[in-house]
Amino acid sequence: MMLPTHVQLVDVGPRDGLQNEAQPVAAAHKIELVHRLQAAGLKQIEVTSFVSPKWVPQMGDNTEVMAGIQRQPGVRYSVLTPNMKGFEGALAAQADEVVIFAAASEAFSQRNINCSIAESIERFRPVAQAARQHGLRVRAAVSCALGCPYEGDIAIDKVVDVARRLQGIGSHHIGIADTIGVGTAGRVSQVMEATLKHVPLAELSGHFHDTYGQALTNIHACLQLGIHTFDASIAGLGGCPYAKGATGNVATEDVVYLLHGLGIHTGLDLDALVDAGAYISGVLGRPPASRVAKALLAKRANA
Amino acid sequence: MMLPTHVQLVDVGPRDGLQNEAQPVAAAHKIELVHRLQAAGLKQIEVTSFVSPKWVPQMGDNTEVMAGIQRQPGVRYSVLTPNMKGFEGALAAQADEVVIFAAASEAFSQRNINCSIAESIERFRPVAQAARQHGLRVRAAVSCALGCPYEGDIAIDKVVDVARRLQGIGSHHIGIADTIGVGTAGRVSQVMEATLKHVPLAELSGHFHDTYGQALTNIHACLQLGIHTFDASIAGLGGCPYAKGATGNVATEDVVYLLHGLGIHTGLDLDALVDAGAYISGVLGRPPASRVAKALLAKRANA
Repeated sequence: MMLPTHVQLVDVGPRDGLQNEAQPVAAAHKIELVHRLQAAGLKQIEVTSFVSPKWVPQMGDNTEVMAGIQRQPGVRYSVLTPNMKGFEGALAAQADEVVIFAAASEAFSQRNINCSIAESIERFRPVAQAARQHGLRVRAAVSCALGCPYEGDIAIDKVVDVARRLQGIGSHHIGIADTIGVGTAGRVSQVMEATLKHVPLAELSGHFHDTYGQALTNIHACLQLGIHTFDASIAGLGGCPYAKGATGNVATEDVVYLLHGLGIHTGLDLDALVDAGAYISGVLGRPPASRVAKALLAKRANA
Repeated sequence: MMLPTHVQLVDVGPRDGLQNEAQPVAAAHKIELVHRLQAAGLKQIEVTSFVSPKWVPQMGDNTEVMAGIQRQPGVRYSVLTPNMKGFEGALAAQADEVVIFAAASEAFSQRNINCSIAESIERFRPVAQAARQHGLRVRAAVSCALGCPYEGDIAIDKVVDVARRLQGIGSHHIGIADTIGVGTAGRVSQVMEATLKHVPLAELSGHFHDTYGQALTNIHACLQLGIHTFDASIAGLGGCPYAKGATGNVATEDVVYLLHGLGIHTGLDLDALVDAGAYISGVLGRPPASRVAKALLAKRANA
């Protein structure tokens, strides 16, 4: 069983992590977080979303945040764009990549964005097209791929079908997302194996939540299939809106600890990541959700 | 890759979990916890230790706890016994199994129990002998097998050597313990593969801590080798004395969620385990460290 030698992480903390925060986070703190993430070695950062501030007030400072970042060459700055209006904002803000998404669950699609899966993909078609025309990359996520809070289990065929349709409208990359963190390693392997029949290894990634503590095991199962791109969120930013008080996104620090332990190169500096996580956790006034960060910060405090 | 069809968990919460609690836990609460664990289906429970109350005051009620348990047929009640005096207590309390231990790290052995590894094993020789004479099982643990807080990395040969010496004095079972939770899946596989050359699959188990969030991934790596016995601690009881504020023992609930997700039989009722964990967490006045418990309790609260 050969694991990949290199893994690339996409830190989604500034966007996916912070978007659910009840209290506003100042743009200056978000910019500082992005600076710390790139200083720690991250080459892909999901910075913000260009979505109506009526829906996601926390991302209302998208233009200010994008403009405030001192960009580093070789770093890709992504933004979520739910529609053409969002795309225009992303383009003006000089994003490198737009993120689009569709659910693998009809019930989730209806309740979350008020349209069918097919309709949601049609809405993203012009976004993907425009992005490609302007030389931006298109990263697509299949949400609820391992389970849905309304439907429960999701058929693997459905996940693969949505992934292929997102490919069909011009996505460069497909992320399989366990939005509610219910998946376990065996099912994750099955979903990924089925998707890999249609999506090349280099264009597929996993996005796992730690709500049930399964994220690292799921990532390990993906590594065993050769998958080498994963989303993660600094300090585990981003709770689970479907189980209040529960953990959401897997913490970047925890993934990096696993990967380095396996001898896999990430180009990331774990201590700098712990510092970045401690910084934003300090801003939010709570300890990081990352177990590695907790352990290393405790070790530092005792040293 | 064939995973085992059945896995047996040993809940070490009442002993390994509670022993580090600063505030005394009443014997009645410990007894109730054991009752709840066996009602949830656990067949192996590490109840207490027969060690001087000067060293571990939290276990000073060992005889009272053992006497208070309404025993169920088919359940094995284990106790930690560091020496012959402890063994006499265990025998009088009608324990089914004694637990002995040796470190794979000389520095840890010296600092933790003030003698060399070889000396510690010699001290356990009469305990193991007496236990076998009286028909008790002997379960031995190799601590610091994945790393030591003083020495750092531990040679795999050293772990195997200590495991073989514990076998040599009459242990029925060998547990490989990542006492400080630093191990990752690749190294765990290597240590287990090396140990399996000398210890039969049915006599080997893993004991993992979640300090760095790696426990489930390590268990999954063991499952891939066919290992089918693991220690776990209800509600994740037991912090990490080497990193205050960090997580210790992997939570039984989290392991069971993984195993059931993989289609592996455990004979355990996850909801009853969550209840048992919520019970003892309530006694301790803090939320369970188990992510699964947190998510399921949040789901119940929202239902």
